Amino acid sequence: MSVGSPGAGPPGAPDTVFFLSDYGLRDEFVGVVHAVLRRLAPAARVIDLTHEVPPFDVRAGAATLTRAWPHLGDGVVLAVVDPGVGGGRRGLLLEVASIGGPRYLVGPDNGLLVPAAEAAGIRAPVELAEPPPDAAVTFDGRDVFAPAVAALCRGSTPGELGRVVDPASLARVPGLVLEPGVLSDGRQALRVEVSWVDRLGNVQLAVPADALPADVPVVVVRPDAGLWTAVVGADFAADEEVVRARTFADLEPDQPGLLADGNGNLALVVREGSAAAHFGLGPGSLVQLVW
Amino acid sequence: MSVGSPGAGPPGAPDTVFFLSDYGLRDEFVGVVHAVLRRLAPAARVIDLTHEVPPFDVRAGAATLTRAWPHLGDGVVLAVVDPGVGGGRRGLLLEVASIGGPRYLVGPDNGLLVPAAEAAGIRAPVELAEPPPDAAVTFDGRDVFAPAVAALCRGSTPGELGRVVDPASLARVPGLVLEPGVLSDGRQALRVEVSWVDRLGNVQLAVPADALPADVPVVVVRPDAGLWTAVVGADFAADEEVVRARTFADLEPDQPGLLADGNGNLALVVREGSAAAHFGLGPGSLVQLVW
Amino acid sequence: MSVGSPGAGPPGAPDTVFFLSDYGLRDEFVGVVHAVLRRLAPAARVIDLTHEVPPFDVRAGAATLTRAWPHLGDGVVLAVVDPGVGGGRRGLLLEVASIGGPRYLVGPDNGLLVPAAEAAGIRAPVELAEPPPDAAVTFDGRDVFAPAVAALCRGSTPGELGRVVDPASLARVPGLVLEPGVLSDGRQALRVEVSWVDRLGNVQLAVPADALPADVPVVVVRPDAGLWTAVVGADFAADEEVVRARTFADLEPDQPGLLADGNGNLALVVREGSAAAHFGLGPGSLVQLVW
Repeated sequence: MSVGSPGAGPPGAPDTVFFLSDYGLRDEFVGVVHAVLRRLAPAARVIDLTHEVPPFDVRAGAATLTRAWPHLGDGVVLAVVDPGVGGGRRGLLLEVASIGGPRYLVGPDNGLLVPAAEAAGIRAPVELAEPPPDAAVTFDGRDVFAPAVAALCRGSTPGELGRVVDPASLARVPGLVLEPGVLSDGRQALRVEVSWVDRLGNVQLAVPADALPADVPVVVVRPDAGLWTAVVGADFAADEEVVRARTFADLEPDQPGLLADGNGNLALVVREGSAAAHFGLGPGSLVQLVW
Repeated sequence: MSVGSPGAGPPGAPDTVFFLSDYGLRDEFVGVVHAVLRRLAPAARVIDLTHEVPPFDVRAGAATLTRAWPHLGDGVVLAVVDPGVGGGRRGLLLEVASIGGPRYLVGPDNGLLVPAAEAAGIRAPVELAEPPPDAAVTFDGRDVFAPAVAALCRGSTPGELGRVVDPASLARVPGLVLEPGVLSDGRQALRVEVSWVDRLGNVQLAVPADALPADVPVVVVRPDAGLWTAVVGADFAADEEVVRARTFADLEPDQPGLLADGNGNLALVVREGSAAAHFGLGPGSLVQLVW
Repeated sequence: MSVGSPGAGPPGAPDTVFFLSDYGLRDEFVGVVHAVLRRLAPAARVIDLTHEVPPFDVRAGAATLTRAWPHLGDGVVLAVVDPGVGGGRRGLLLEVASIGGPRYLVGPDNGLLVPAAEAAGIRAPVELAEPPPDAAVTFDGRDVFAPAVAALCRGSTPGELGRVVDPASLARVPGLVLEPGVLSDGRQALRVEVSWVDRLGNVQLAVPADALPADVPVVVVRPDAGLWTAVVGADFAADEEVVRARTFADLEPDQPGLLADGNGNLALVVREGSAAAHFGLGPGSLVQLVW
């Protein structure tokens, strides 16, 4: 759609950048990367997905990108959550096979990009060419990744920006825990990891909503003991029956519930309250659902 | 002005979106809505008014939109502060009569849009067509409102996006308190609500600056007792004489003052300090000005 | 590059605005300024450098702008950190001589713009024409500076927006402290000011990295006593030997180090930790490096 725009890349080149990082908005990091993209690819539009990924939390960044992905159109993802900057980890450019969403992802080779890209089908990954050895090396977002993104928007091919590497060599983050099981008393259970707590305290679980049968109206939420035992009650202080709701409106104020969230995952919520505080859960917590 | 831009809507369609919400910038909510708008209305420019409206505070959101309105040009307002999401409240599209500012407002029918729209003159309001009943319903900003906004930018008319409803049926938020009165000792008084505390602690009052006669140089600020009595002093510990200033520069550091703020309202301020802390006031507080 | 864009200024006029302020993102200040720019210069692209400069901290704002400057392309800087708003300080438009970066800076005459502009070479400074005396005066970013920036994007010349003033009359902020010295025991030392603490707690010092000889592998960091004495040890509880690193990866987790940061300055860092907390330093702190 960029044909004919002043400063645009060649016909067919991507013209939208989806930018995600842990830079925060307190300093000028994000603005400077925008400025570099404006200078090197003036017609590209840059959309900030978020810059408040918890510092250095690669798994949280990967989960954020995965959640956002289905809603992104054509373009290039620029994602930087990079505890290993300067430490020899590779810069990465991933082209994906699926049509309609982003075509490319650019960022560090630390697992940040892989979950979203893999779902879309990774083509040959490219290791970005290294900057000159005497360059300042603590701001790769500005100096390495943004220029690569801009080059793609100007029509460069991945092969022009680095060399193809073995997909099996890509760094990966540990997957989110999701284990179905059966308690000793015969009840069904899911052991599942908290994938995200949003700013309102809604607790997203790493399980699609349809993993819970539609005819289960109440679920017991219990702390994870890593054991498929039926001990419930006094032994688990936090055991709590939670109703399944379709929307917040099905709940009373302050009532907890379990619903399908905007990403189609199960989420523990409290109407007009914080489920994270109510259940004492945070990203990475494990919890069991029993029914 | 969008004629001829690649991806632009038809001549005359709005090409700017003014986006206000309580989504916060910590998660990817705002970025995903931007991505949806980019995909569905690629030429539209999206301007973030703010996304830090206090969660679920419809009145604060309405006040923010009302303050910003006089400075907005042609376009569409996308506003989402929505405690009732999923609870059957309608989605709303308001077309306004005034020329030069935004033409349309899109958001929930909970009073958020009405104060700004009413000042501009509401034409026939439209209830947005509902999404398919099986759709995830907890992210209307992404799934209902942004697509409606994009459709307007692509040239759709309001009538194509829903059905006209009775203006009298629109939900409204309670108006801000503003009551002139006379104390028992004959002095003039205004009982007025705090409409906004900005991040520096400036306390905006819900009253135009010219409601206070120009020749009143000093005003007594007193806690609201809901009574037009003249008891002042020991009975009201916080009674305080405040000078009227034209600008902060008329005040000494740490000195409180009353001035016309950037929206033309009276505001209690403290030079290089927080009037909210000084007077113990927050949004929704009531205060009396006496002279 | 704006030739032919709808709504664009004349050929050759700047079409990018770099916007920096202490407005914060909690209120609608930033959004309203964006809206004004969109209305008055619809084709200009606005890049937010940051809006979280500490309130009223002109020196911090000037340092932020100076750090960002080398990465900015053609355009206009709009910078507002303005404790003296309404107090008679002038509005300023600076044209700079260097090619490739921003051409103009617009903001208050309080020293905010000068360090960055001076490095680029200030041409004749212009005092912006004052707004009508009855105008609200507490939001110059919206009412004075943004319109001036928009006028430049529409092709106005500086001379059309105000009158040339004496460069020597420009307000300035105190420079950052940087004093080389020799201790009484013959060791080299630098007395230097902390110019910035980023959100991760990295402590930038106001000294280029190459001011420290390349063959110095370890530096003593000591509190500043303002004296070039050799008393080290028990007398200075915080005296600490710090290794020089090339990148974070050269350090162990929690190990402090001294490295060249992304701006080419020396910075005290702690791998995966906060150097500001470790050393007890903040912006404006003085520290001595001894070797």
